[in-house]
Amino acid sequence: MNYRVVLNILGKVLLTEALLLLFPLAAALWYGESALPFLWTMLPLLLLGGALNFVKPRRTDLFAREGFVVVGLAWLLMSAFGAVPFVLSGDIPRYIDALFETVSGFTTTGSSILADVETMSRGCMFWRLFTHWVGGMGVLVFIAAILPISGEHYIHVMRAEVPGPTVSKLVPRARKTARILYLIYLVLTLIETVFLLCGGMSFYDAILHAFATAGTGGFSTRALSVGAYGSVYLETVIATFMLLFGCNFNLFYLILLGQGLAVFKSEELRVFLAVIAASVLAIALNIRGSVGGFLQGLRYAYFQVTTIISTTGFSTCDFDKWPELSRWILVLLMFVGGCAGSTAGGLKVSRIIILFKSYLYELKQLILPTRIKRIWFEGKAVSDQTVRSVLVYFQTYMAIIALSVLLLTLDGRDLVTNLTASIACISNIGPGLNLVGPMGNFAFYSVPAKLVLIFEMLLGRLEIFPVLFLFSPSVWKKR
Amino acid sequence: MNYRVVLNILGKVLLTEALLLLFPLAAALWYGESALPFLWTMLPLLLLGGALNFVKPRRTDLFAREGFVVVGLAWLLMSAFGAVPFVLSGDIPRYIDALFETVSGFTTTGSSILADVETMSRGCMFWRLFTHWVGGMGVLVFIAAILPISGEHYIHVMRAEVPGPTVSKLVPRARKTARILYLIYLVLTLIETVFLLCGGMSFYDAILHAFATAGTGGFSTRALSVGAYGSVYLETVIATFMLLFGCNFNLFYLILLGQGLAVFKSEELRVFLAVIAASVLAIALNIRGSVGGFLQGLRYAYFQVTTIISTTGFSTCDFDKWPELSRWILVLLMFVGGCAGSTAGGLKVSRIIILFKSYLYELKQLILPTRIKRIWFEGKAVSDQTVRSVLVYFQTYMAIIALSVLLLTLDGRDLVTNLTASIACISNIGPGLNLVGPMGNFAFYSVPAKLVLIFEMLLGRLEIFPVLFLFSPSVWKKR
Repeated sequence: MNYRVVLNILGKVLLTEALLLLFPLAAALWYGESALPFLWTMLPLLLLGGALNFVKPRRTDLFAREGFVVVGLAWLLMSAFGAVPFVLSGDIPRYIDALFETVSGFTTTGSSILADVETMSRGCMFWRLFTHWVGGMGVLVFIAAILPISGEHYIHVMRAEVPGPTVSKLVPRARKTARILYLIYLVLTLIETVFLLCGGMSFYDAILHAFATAGTGGFSTRALSVGAYGSVYLETVIATFMLLFGCNFNLFYLILLGQGLAVFKSEELRVFLAVIAASVLAIALNIRGSVGGFLQGLRYAYFQVTTIISTTGFSTCDFDKWPELSRWILVLLMFVGGCAGSTAGGLKVSRIIILFKSYLYELKQLILPTRIKRIWFEGKAVSDQTVRSVLVYFQTYMAIIALSVLLLTLDGRDLVTNLTASIACISNIGPGLNLVGPMGNFAFYSVPAKLVLIFEMLLGRLEIFPVLFLFSPSVWKKR
Repeated sequence: MNYRVVLNILGKVLLTEALLLLFPLAAALWYGESALPFLWTMLPLLLLGGALNFVKPRRTDLFAREGFVVVGLAWLLMSAFGAVPFVLSGDIPRYIDALFETVSGFTTTGSSILADVETMSRGCMFWRLFTHWVGGMGVLVFIAAILPISGEHYIHVMRAEVPGPTVSKLVPRARKTARILYLIYLVLTLIETVFLLCGGMSFYDAILHAFATAGTGGFSTRALSVGAYGSVYLETVIATFMLLFGCNFNLFYLILLGQGLAVFKSEELRVFLAVIAASVLAIALNIRGSVGGFLQGLRYAYFQVTTIISTTGFSTCDFDKWPELSRWILVLLMFVGGCAGSTAGGLKVSRIIILFKSYLYELKQLILPTRIKRIWFEGKAVSDQTVRSVLVYFQTYMAIIALSVLLLTLDGRDLVTNLTASIACISNIGPGLNLVGPMGNFAFYSVPAKLVLIFEMLLGRLEIFPVLFLFSPSVWKKR
């Protein structure tokens, strides 16, 4: 383990977080609120971050192992410090609750412990939704985009932070890849803000909801979430942007390069859109009786399906009251998630495709064992190692959910609450069903249960291994 | 596809079923009931079976493909005919319900549509519990044991019927292996019968409960299941035999060979026993408050844990009323199931071990990608193909549960009922939670929902692929 390079990068992460806190600080000053909660958080960040930044690595080499460890530790530290302003401002008095809310923000989960959202100070609310934007694309990708990081090894750090079974560099250099990704991200966020302003949202609400959409987070400034605005236009804009942010960012890059038609050749995109279309149709038909017709059904279904599959978690109605078929479709979509290389959580569509193809492969092997074939995805043969990784990822995902529910049951809540809370947290959705449904929140869980859910959110966002690495003794051994 | 050999074996299966019907026929005559329901079922079996038996195969070669197809079709036919006596006797007037009960019997699930068990005629009750015994070890294994089947290719048929990720022949010849397995099975069943007689059960109840235990089925002659006897002795005997029938039969063969100590070297057995011990302890502690102390807790916990992990499904109390922790442990045990090569269902302990080891393997690969190692199980390196099969098996299992619940939700029942009904059927357990809990039954489901559950029971018992094969067009093509 190259400790020095790890510490050096962690220093940069802390300094970056101090920098990012300037935005909510500005919002607080603009609205005449105290800037102290942010200043007092920035101070230790600057001191510790500055000190670590002085640790100069002797070698700049960095392997997958260091990449995982940096990302795991960076996210823990960022969350630990990011929770402080909520406590200092008095908006969330207990640290464990503030930590839950911050991890939920950075991991773009959007599960909340707040019963009364609308009394939060403007500065803290800005920070709360801004964490979605920061966490969506990832802070280490951000650092790659803005700081001169030496060595091409940094791609290992980006790989550990960007979701998906395989990560391709858009361009040969990691730094340029990071810049392109952040540029697309920023531009799409601004476009959405403009669309929301056109729908009559205030600038403050528009930019914050754009942050939450872009990161596929799901926090809202309103207790009733997007439903509070009661506007079909705003719902449609947000639903469509949730869908866009659930797509692989490589596709937007292809469009930038003028290869717009190539986008529709993407197997992952086509499956993603097909799943959305089928789910919207099924739910609209299923709920049409209770919401006043098929068209109204389509409206609610389009929003809820995009919000769940993109793992955002906004809501426009209490889908926990929907018929069982619709509820179960939503639970299944929680597992699917968005495309690889998006800001969405879940298993990712590409993994689902590889899982399905490996099932077909197994069937073919049993029928005609002599004819050895390979699994193809997006026009390329998938290596055996990637297939095995995807299969292992799936079973580890399920095992984490099973064990988390086991720990949550100690709190004594009902099975549906615990199970969907667990799925919602590891898939970075936000709401689940029953007590943690769209009209509920996570405040009632005990401190140990909240720690379990915090852990699940981190596991989900960082795709399990960077977090589990921190608990594997052999990672820490010197070679 | 070698159609002639497939048809010939199916003929033997039908003739065998006619032969097996002599037992409930004898019971009916003994208790002065009409023998007609059984005679009228035997007639078409003898005619069709006899006709098919005349189809002489030109070649006796038989590959994995034919093995799967024979087993899939044999189980469908056996169930279709096996349901007839229940309808003819009037005990279960609707054919779909009789089919559900029969499939539940043969697959050793034990889920019932009967609200009033105790009014069933003695002959039909004998047949109902005898199906557990026939299905437990498998009818095609039985045929191998009693009939002169030419060619060593028949091992492919046995492989498709005996559960587990890999099937080892005890001795080089398939026929001798089948005989040893059935001999162990028969002797253990008789020993249990004697133990139950010593506890004061009538001979009829004792032999039938021994059948249901041996096949890890779970039907009972009593509405309150084993709880109806209220005897700690009987509960302990049955629980211990459920544990034994959940073990790999190879281990009993080792004991027969005088290698008793080698048994405890089995990794699978050790994990199986450890999981049971941990679960019993956790549940006993969890329920001690509501059942009157820790010792009473141990009594209920030992029985419920062995009944669920062995996928039998007897009950001595309403565990649906237990605290959430205990309920969730039982749900997780439903997935685990017994050991490979036992009569139990579920994923099987050996698959769970391989899943866990492939997770560790993945972690090690990420930490030190240069050091390629293999996965070891029971002292042997596991082939990549077996590991992949196990991983695919797991995800296919989960996908079937997810899709089945989707279809079940059309009936409008609650999520916990549908989810646990689905798990209970594919894992061949019997009861689930809520409406399908130990005090409920499956009668309320609609005909389409019952067909889904019937399909799941068959998928679970035959380990998925033999059943799915029947629906793969490429299986039926001539080579």
